[in-house]
Amino acid sequence: MKKKISLLGATGSIGKSTLDVLRNNPEMFELVAFSFYSNIELAKKIIEEFQPKIVGVRDQSMAQTLTALYPKVEFIAELQGLIAVATAKDVKIVLTALIGSVGLLPTMAAIKNGKDIALANKEILVMAGYWVMQAAKENDVKILPVDSEHSAIFQVLQGQDMKNIKELVITASGGSFRDLTREELKQVTLEDALQHPNWAMGKKITIDSSTMVNKGLEVIEAHWLFNASYDKIKVVLHRESTVHSMIRLVDGAYFAQLGASDMREPIQYALTFPNRRPLKKEKVFDIADVAVLHFDKLDKERFPMLALAFAVGVKGGSFPTVFNAANEVAVNAFIAGKIKYLEIENLIQRAVAKHQEKENLTLEMVIEIDKQTRQKVYERIKL
Amino acid sequence: MKKKISLLGATGSIGKSTLDVLRNNPEMFELVAFSFYSNIELAKKIIEEFQPKIVGVRDQSMAQTLTALYPKVEFIAELQGLIAVATAKDVKIVLTALIGSVGLLPTMAAIKNGKDIALANKEILVMAGYWVMQAAKENDVKILPVDSEHSAIFQVLQGQDMKNIKELVITASGGSFRDLTREELKQVTLEDALQHPNWAMGKKITIDSSTMVNKGLEVIEAHWLFNASYDKIKVVLHRESTVHSMIRLVDGAYFAQLGASDMREPIQYALTFPNRRPLKKEKVFDIADVAVLHFDKLDKERFPMLALAFAVGVKGGSFPTVFNAANEVAVNAFIAGKIKYLEIENLIQRAVAKHQEKENLTLEMVIEIDKQTRQKVYERIKL
Repeated sequence: MKKKISLLGATGSIGKSTLDVLRNNPEMFELVAFSFYSNIELAKKIIEEFQPKIVGVRDQSMAQTLTALYPKVEFIAELQGLIAVATAKDVKIVLTALIGSVGLLPTMAAIKNGKDIALANKEILVMAGYWVMQAAKENDVKILPVDSEHSAIFQVLQGQDMKNIKELVITASGGSFRDLTREELKQVTLEDALQHPNWAMGKKITIDSSTMVNKGLEVIEAHWLFNASYDKIKVVLHRESTVHSMIRLVDGAYFAQLGASDMREPIQYALTFPNRRPLKKEKVFDIADVAVLHFDKLDKERFPMLALAFAVGVKGGSFPTVFNAANEVAVNAFIAGKIKYLEIENLIQRAVAKHQEKENLTLEMVIEIDKQTRQKVYERIKL
Repeated sequence: MKKKISLLGATGSIGKSTLDVLRNNPEMFELVAFSFYSNIELAKKIIEEFQPKIVGVRDQSMAQTLTALYPKVEFIAELQGLIAVATAKDVKIVLTALIGSVGLLPTMAAIKNGKDIALANKEILVMAGYWVMQAAKENDVKILPVDSEHSAIFQVLQGQDMKNIKELVITASGGSFRDLTREELKQVTLEDALQHPNWAMGKKITIDSSTMVNKGLEVIEAHWLFNASYDKIKVVLHRESTVHSMIRLVDGAYFAQLGASDMREPIQYALTFPNRRPLKKEKVFDIADVAVLHFDKLDKERFPMLALAFAVGVKGGSFPTVFNAANEVAVNAFIAGKIKYLEIENLIQRAVAKHQEKENLTLEMVIEIDKQTRQKVYERIKL
């Protein structure tokens, strides 16, 4: 019996790697449903190769176009389409590779339908971690990390008693600009920002890596995934990204998970958990070929967004929501050429500083705060 | 209720580290019995500090001397003393830090008495691994590794399914002479050989590290401890000894255990397994302070003893016994100034090459082969 899979965000970087995992294990997995946003040519190929039952699409006109081509497939547009993919019948696990807070409602719908979640869409844990984890608990659903860092920690935590864990240690490559001073950052371009030293990834996450916002989001994600207080989460600079992350035990030992910079590995682990399978790859990673691994402390003044992420994480409530929402708008503006690089940081700092916490927060209130923050940051950019 | 401990070899390097672990956890452990060989002054201090019931000593005259000083303690000489320590009443775990094959009979006696073994005395697994592991199984006794490499592998294997393990990857610092050519090895002295780059250890193991015999013994030890075939055991050069060892999983990921070069950590883990406790230490190991880790392939021509260890391991039977026995005699001769450094290798190679396997091996036959090999190598040195 094949494991039935839904894939939210099939045409992005994580989506493509996920399809490769499914392609290499045709006897194990069946892609029942997927969503995509704009890459219709790739979507057609995916439909022809994987023969899904349901496809979530951007808008009604796209749904009509595709229905004409593939009458047996059900095409559903917009949020309704994402939710249909997330809750498709008989699906056991939903891989969420949407980018940003748009993934929240589909993921919540999947959880409420008892689907396990393979989570690549870290922003939803940052935005609404309390409610996502609460819903997962209530519905006895697993949240399986796909981020390489969190997958690494999750992998080495298996079989360990949490009382023996002193710290979770997330590695950070430092991103595209790790060797630049803050003065030099004033002049960097979008093109510069998109050159990640180790990983080929989507635009948003590559820019988030360069600002260290990504590592900040990961810290908050780790807090929720592993129920770890922020004083037990550390970030260490590791240029090569070979050690994907570590845990530190009470007796001083570290356990590290390391390997190739290949997202298919954590994706496959999330889909096969608690089992493992060989991973078909062109080039096998061998530690004896690695030569050198570097580790260093992170300079918090050089990377103020990491310190801010810890601060909003500790404050809790909707502060991480604001941090994440401001970042999403700012990064989109930077990609669109509307702001300079360092304005990303300024916009986030300003949004967080101005945020006034509400009492008795609910998920609906958090969604509203997310919207309002976006609106405010958007208006500020237009000024 | 304190866990009662016996310690075979209390005054050596591992013995001292073990006593430090006991000293730091007085509410957890009680030292019921220990043995020592020649360092009587240290032995007196241990008796006064830990108040053991039984002490194994080298000979009758030493037993008499100590009985006069400590009439409440039972002093027993020679092999009988070691066995009395290994089988002392109510002892739960015996830490075996004897050096070489002398530890075999006491360890077998402990196993047959249902004591768990914290094994630092790797030679006994090389000499008679089949019988030791068989006895452990029959008596439902745990063999807990104390070697930092095997402890590392044992630690990261917890909670893992062996079918997901592709390889055990033992790290090797390369020892005192890793940067010398074979030509340069012709001139090295005992003093040179005793300068290990990373660990402060006893003489025999430091010399074994320089010849890579130690790594060969560890390969054979890993074979028995983890029931791993030799094609699943790899050795990788890692100059810093920070990564104590690794496992490689079927999907390509590695799990590594890393930390300080402090034997108290694996010792404490073996004594507290499956629990962990904080380790009191002066200087805390922090990965962010590490700066650089190097990995490289091992040159088998440069280190012929490693290749020979794999070969005798694969041949099995009493070939590893011969390899180990010849090495013990050769290293003692080198320490005594009777042979040059490279003659250690020659003596081992010759003993292995001349060995004729017996059919239907028993433990008694293996013990006899060990004796005969020692005799032959000893005679050859005298020639």
